[in-house]
Amino acid sequence: MAPRSDCAIAATLNVLGDRWSLLIVRDLMFRGTLRYGDLAASAEGIPTNTLADRLRKLEDAGILDKQAYTDRPLRYEYTLTDRGRALGPVLDAIATWGVTYIPGTRRLGP
Amino acid sequence: MAPRSDCAIAATLNVLGDRWSLLIVRDLMFRGTLRYGDLAASAEGIPTNTLADRLRKLEDAGILDKQAYTDRPLRYEYTLTDRGRALGPVLDAIATWGVTYIPGTRRLGP
Repeated sequence: MAPRSDCAIAATLNVLGDRWSLLIVRDLMFRGTLRYGDLAASAEGIPTNTLADRLRKLEDAGILDKQAYTDRPLRYEYTLTDRGRALGPVLDAIATWGVTYIPGTRRLGP
Repeated sequence: MAPRSDCAIAATLNVLGDRWSLLIVRDLMFRGTLRYGDLAASAEGIPTNTLADRLRKLEDAGILDKQAYTDRPLRYEYTLTDRGRALGPVLDAIATWGVTYIPGTRRLGP
């Protein structure tokens, strides 16, 4: 993404990557700290290798933190950082557009 | 995307597909009606087959209209519909997050 890499929109979409990332952020925003299995069961059937990849990218981007909740076997839970929670208005604007223009959809709350 | 297909966020991301779609919407939002070549030259180096695919999907979703501006050869220009212009707050929220959290980015204006 060379030419307009200083565009805040392009740079943000670059970080978020694709719709799966925003759906993961949505689940953590509305439901708080979640374990890997919760996210796998929730996000519209996200393929498990895609989930692992997006979680790593979102962690690298400082949007979520992971913490081990058990040592053996080692298992993690995921929480939005402040930077991640600041995506609230983005999700809100998307939900507003969706309920207005896509019949049969509704705003899922926290 | 079966389980939560009534979620307005999931449904919207389903329509928008990926970041390229939102970058096309951005260009049309800020710069008005554009020809295929303008979009190809602009959107962060979008591959031309991806551009053609996303334009068709955005047209199918009622987000943009295309109109022929010359007959021979047949060439089209693209304009946001009302439904497409209503994505303004989504782009705005993304830009606000980007300029706040990604150093070196700026808000590109209309």
